[in-house]
Amino acid sequence: MFFASDNGGPAAPEIINAIAAANAGYASAYGNDDLMDAVTHKIRTVFEAPDAIVYLVATGTAANALGLATLTQPWQTIYCHRVSHIEEDECGAPEFYTNGAKLGLIDGADGRMDPAALDTAINHTARAGVHNVQKGPLSITNTTETGTVYTLDHIRSLTKIAKNAGIPVHMDGARFANALISLGCTPAEMTWKSGVDVLSFGGTKNGCMGVEAVVLFNPDLAWEFELRRKRGGHLFSKHRYLSAQMNAYLTDDLWLQLATQANDMGAYLAQELSKIAGTSFVHPTEANMIFASWDRAGHRRAQNAGAYYYFWPSDYSLDGDDDEKLAARLVCNWATTKDDIDQLIHHIKG
Amino acid sequence: MFFASDNGGPAAPEIINAIAAANAGYASAYGNDDLMDAVTHKIRTVFEAPDAIVYLVATGTAANALGLATLTQPWQTIYCHRVSHIEEDECGAPEFYTNGAKLGLIDGADGRMDPAALDTAINHTARAGVHNVQKGPLSITNTTETGTVYTLDHIRSLTKIAKNAGIPVHMDGARFANALISLGCTPAEMTWKSGVDVLSFGGTKNGCMGVEAVVLFNPDLAWEFELRRKRGGHLFSKHRYLSAQMNAYLTDDLWLQLATQANDMGAYLAQELSKIAGTSFVHPTEANMIFASWDRAGHRRAQNAGAYYYFWPSDYSLDGDDDEKLAARLVCNWATTKDDIDQLIHHIKG
Amino acid sequence: MFFASDNGGPAAPEIINAIAAANAGYASAYGNDDLMDAVTHKIRTVFEAPDAIVYLVATGTAANALGLATLTQPWQTIYCHRVSHIEEDECGAPEFYTNGAKLGLIDGADGRMDPAALDTAINHTARAGVHNVQKGPLSITNTTETGTVYTLDHIRSLTKIAKNAGIPVHMDGARFANALISLGCTPAEMTWKSGVDVLSFGGTKNGCMGVEAVVLFNPDLAWEFELRRKRGGHLFSKHRYLSAQMNAYLTDDLWLQLATQANDMGAYLAQELSKIAGTSFVHPTEANMIFASWDRAGHRRAQNAGAYYYFWPSDYSLDGDDDEKLAARLVCNWATTKDDIDQLIHHIKG
Amino acid sequence: MFFASDNGGPAAPEIINAIAAANAGYASAYGNDDLMDAVTHKIRTVFEAPDAIVYLVATGTAANALGLATLTQPWQTIYCHRVSHIEEDECGAPEFYTNGAKLGLIDGADGRMDPAALDTAINHTARAGVHNVQKGPLSITNTTETGTVYTLDHIRSLTKIAKNAGIPVHMDGARFANALISLGCTPAEMTWKSGVDVLSFGGTKNGCMGVEAVVLFNPDLAWEFELRRKRGGHLFSKHRYLSAQMNAYLTDDLWLQLATQANDMGAYLAQELSKIAGTSFVHPTEANMIFASWDRAGHRRAQNAGAYYYFWPSDYSLDGDDDEKLAARLVCNWATTKDDIDQLIHHIKG
Repeated sequence: MFFASDNGGPAAPEIINAIAAANAGYASAYGNDDLMDAVTHKIRTVFEAPDAIVYLVATGTAANALGLATLTQPWQTIYCHRVSHIEEDECGAPEFYTNGAKLGLIDGADGRMDPAALDTAINHTARAGVHNVQKGPLSITNTTETGTVYTLDHIRSLTKIAKNAGIPVHMDGARFANALISLGCTPAEMTWKSGVDVLSFGGTKNGCMGVEAVVLFNPDLAWEFELRRKRGGHLFSKHRYLSAQMNAYLTDDLWLQLATQANDMGAYLAQELSKIAGTSFVHPTEANMIFASWDRAGHRRAQNAGAYYYFWPSDYSLDGDDDEKLAARLVCNWATTKDDIDQLIHHIKG
Repeated sequence: MFFASDNGGPAAPEIINAIAAANAGYASAYGNDDLMDAVTHKIRTVFEAPDAIVYLVATGTAANALGLATLTQPWQTIYCHRVSHIEEDECGAPEFYTNGAKLGLIDGADGRMDPAALDTAINHTARAGVHNVQKGPLSITNTTETGTVYTLDHIRSLTKIAKNAGIPVHMDGARFANALISLGCTPAEMTWKSGVDVLSFGGTKNGCMGVEAVVLFNPDLAWEFELRRKRGGHLFSKHRYLSAQMNAYLTDDLWLQLATQANDMGAYLAQELSKIAGTSFVHPTEANMIFASWDRAGHRRAQNAGAYYYFWPSDYSLDGDDDEKLAARLVCNWATTKDDIDQLIHHIKG
Repeated sequence: MFFASDNGGPAAPEIINAIAAANAGYASAYGNDDLMDAVTHKIRTVFEAPDAIVYLVATGTAANALGLATLTQPWQTIYCHRVSHIEEDECGAPEFYTNGAKLGLIDGADGRMDPAALDTAINHTARAGVHNVQKGPLSITNTTETGTVYTLDHIRSLTKIAKNAGIPVHMDGARFANALISLGCTPAEMTWKSGVDVLSFGGTKNGCMGVEAVVLFNPDLAWEFELRRKRGGHLFSKHRYLSAQMNAYLTDDLWLQLATQANDMGAYLAQELSKIAGTSFVHPTEANMIFASWDRAGHRRAQNAGAYYYFWPSDYSLDGDDDEKLAARLVCNWATTKDDIDQLIHHIKG
Repeated sequence: MFFASDNGGPAAPEIINAIAAANAGYASAYGNDDLMDAVTHKIRTVFEAPDAIVYLVATGTAANALGLATLTQPWQTIYCHRVSHIEEDECGAPEFYTNGAKLGLIDGADGRMDPAALDTAINHTARAGVHNVQKGPLSITNTTETGTVYTLDHIRSLTKIAKNAGIPVHMDGARFANALISLGCTPAEMTWKSGVDVLSFGGTKNGCMGVEAVVLFNPDLAWEFELRRKRGGHLFSKHRYLSAQMNAYLTDDLWLQLATQANDMGAYLAQELSKIAGTSFVHPTEANMIFASWDRAGHRRAQNAGAYYYFWPSDYSLDGDDDEKLAARLVCNWATTKDDIDQLIHHIKG
């Protein structure tokens, strides 16, 4: 009954096997391994982007911070949702890697930026003179931090504003596959066809051990990115093990299967929770994360039985009135089973 | 015949097996996994340092830059050898992570700092007023970049100067195990008993897939280090796979066996090279790296037969006079075999 | 009819005379001039703070950014009002000087932070783990950017929260004298007796040519501040001219007289505006800045007659409906005369 | 007998008068004052550079650091002489403003870079791959820190190397006028006609109160420079007083007269010193700075009589053997008189 995060689960066996298989003989270091060529080829094919440049790093924070730094001057604003990962969960990595850019926080329901709010914020900055931080890139998280998914229309309503303002677009796709499955569109449609310039393409949360691809749809940024990656300590010497993960992830649609399983379990969990009287949902369930609220007694039973998940906000306590409703975040991953969910539901119901 | 670097070889099978074994069920993320407790315990035991704080990162550049940043103010000087890795091979990562500290380059034969030169440099900075960059940490690389090893006396002659000046000491131990085997001393003697405050304890070059421990012998620095690691994007969510590597590395003296094998092959290679008429050595061979010079014809035969290594400096060419002597760097790793070396020697001899 | 800013006016004659008087013979450079000793003595006396450390810089942005950097780690949050100068008007100088700290924006009416909002924000950050930006200093602007003044009670309600959270307090006193006159309290009461640790003590806007003092009530920060000032290029070689300004400013209560004059003119302007039918005030007038709204026809008459001030927000236009109400910011300075104001009022009235 | 530095002397009366004259009525802030237009016009005329962009700051460190930051990426090297001001006397300001660039130190006699050494250094960096700090701008100081002057041929021998390598050129002209007088060439010949892209044009050391112009011969850099200046806290609100200084400095050849006087006194001092038996010169005297050596007894007599200058290096002591030769740096400024020098010589002679 582990629902704390999609980073608590194991890697898919195919990933581990690929690492073991890559461990034969010598390989060129620092991204010059043959497997990396295969990765680049696969990503270009999957994204229908023959000129895209692909780099691998091991953490989502590195992917986001390096990608954003390549797009941002130190005196610019990065527009992002108020509860985005780059604002809330990276200990200021974007500020560090950009040498002090500002994050401009955009509101919007269910973790999705409101286009009107983005427009207002950009217009405010666009009037900027020398005294003011300047406009800079837009960063969209899909799947969002609240488990919802931007539709293509929604993405385009934001990127259109960005393009009109002449600013580039980054997508934090730590849960890209979950959003893709939810939308049923193509990777190209979710990204460059909708105005995305740089993508953090997540592998870790969706069944890899630790690998994220940064996809630059504009090849001009390549060399600067490489220098920033090295300077940040994110260029792996034995790079083949990153390549092996990403290559396996993209082989035989593994990445899609893993996300489908996680999303299906998310839907099943939402369905079963909704059957419990008094349960309500804080955000709609559109991928593999559920934000729901039920009474403390149910939380107490579940957690005492070993269920592991976070309250939302995290400082709620099991101590208190039995009937009080407390919200929680539950995350399914590729390894979540119906049995895990059934057990959880059983304990919540009591 | 791969002698380009110790990061081109495979990981030891024990490391891969440990990763596969760690891939069962759920584990707490971000360093809170049980395997990390085992790692900390093992490192404390190996280093006879019950209060040491241990963190894992995936690259040597990250280990060095984060460790140094924790010891350095932006307006300070990091004293290091002119050909140290932090100066020459990290694309300015120390400058980036320290927010602009200066590297003070110390000369000395065979990649080892001359204590008198260090003393002069520190005294120069110690007179510094507000117009000048201030004194900061000393960083010692052992095994050095030129394949030599600082003896305990040599280390202590440097750290004594540092301690007298009130500055902390960092050791870049990307090839720590190779130096340790070469010296035949204890890990404690090579580090805190000789005045080292922060150690980058390398795993990657010595048979791991990608893991380095940062060992803080002063626990006061712990929280700052953790924040810097996260902010740098170097805190792994699925941290268990870093832990698994380091845990296996430290189990049953695997790390010592791997380094012994690499050093033995280094010695064998040096011995065989020395039998070839006209070969000379640029630096003494004390661990697993050989810097030697022989005629171009020999290089041409070896490289045409598939031997892979770097000229030193790297811009020498196979084109030119047959008899001209060209230096090269050859690196043995745990997987190097006598047969690899015999083949290389065979082709050089022609 | 210049009401655009208090930095558009001339320096007081006493300031210019002091500079001329200081221009005799040789003086030690870089703050070691005799006049600086006099400045330190005067500020310690005025603030009843015999241990305070005093440094001079030439711009308010330098004073704020250097003072804050001395109090802030790169991974911390600086709490400030949403419309504070450090957030809106310094092109990211705090982020630059702190190497990437985050500004946590606190709401509150009339440019004054709401204590409850500050408490919430700090508590949110105080729960922070390694993934989150940490709590850092509080920065209070007095006089605020909207022309209001924090009372002592209001300051203390904020600093008490800061002190309970263990965070230091900075005051942006670019218009410190205007607030002091408005409050009728002592400088000590407005600062260290109310929990302020570092003060930007403004001279430029209140009749100097270009000088601000940074007052460190905690002497421990002195050396770090000196290094940061030098490294930022803010240590003047011919420092005596900064000293001369600040010394004259503090002589014979000049600074208080200048601020009294500016505040009196502010009050007079507000009074005269209030007599015009249809005028309303956006913020209360408590010092030398007026935020008022009247019809476009009045603006058109005044501006066509040469009145110089900013609309608020600045993108309002003279083109449009005569009767529409448009807000403006009008700033009085020490050189503003009743005649300036009478003329302005005359043209607004038409 | 003040020979400690050219920043210890007074400002020229014309400068003070210009400040007083500028103190009438209102003026637009932040560089939009009318006097700044006059300054730009004068500098364009003086430098025969009708498209040059001109900005004013108050310190030489600000001028250098901002100019260099505009030319440098964080992962690049700034090539400069080992004893340049940016390396030795700015507390790491270049590293701070560039966000961590490295200074590549070039040797050469008498404070002038050896072209061959520059070529070697650039070639070394030019081979750089992703692991290495990249090549960046060249910075030439003229007058040098050791009082010598680069001839036009010498400048061009360096800038030719830079241009061939595709790197821009900065000139630290804190003592630009002294070099110009020494060379007898035009400002254009010393700068853009010799390949200089960005100039720090010093006023402070040569008789101003505190003003330096940054001249961008390439207008494309303008807006970035403006943002960096503001972000660094170096944009003055009451900018007219910077403009007034620079305008007066450039009026009626004041700047040339002041430098001529300082250089003439330098020559006279060198001549008189050379008449004292046992005196030798550490560097040739080519402008207003003298580096000479004589016996301790002479130093003792002069310093006890009130002569103020620095030993070179500064840690020599008056205590010790009378006959030992000790070097010193003596700097003449526009206000130095023959009488000052005669007195000094008198006391040295004893």
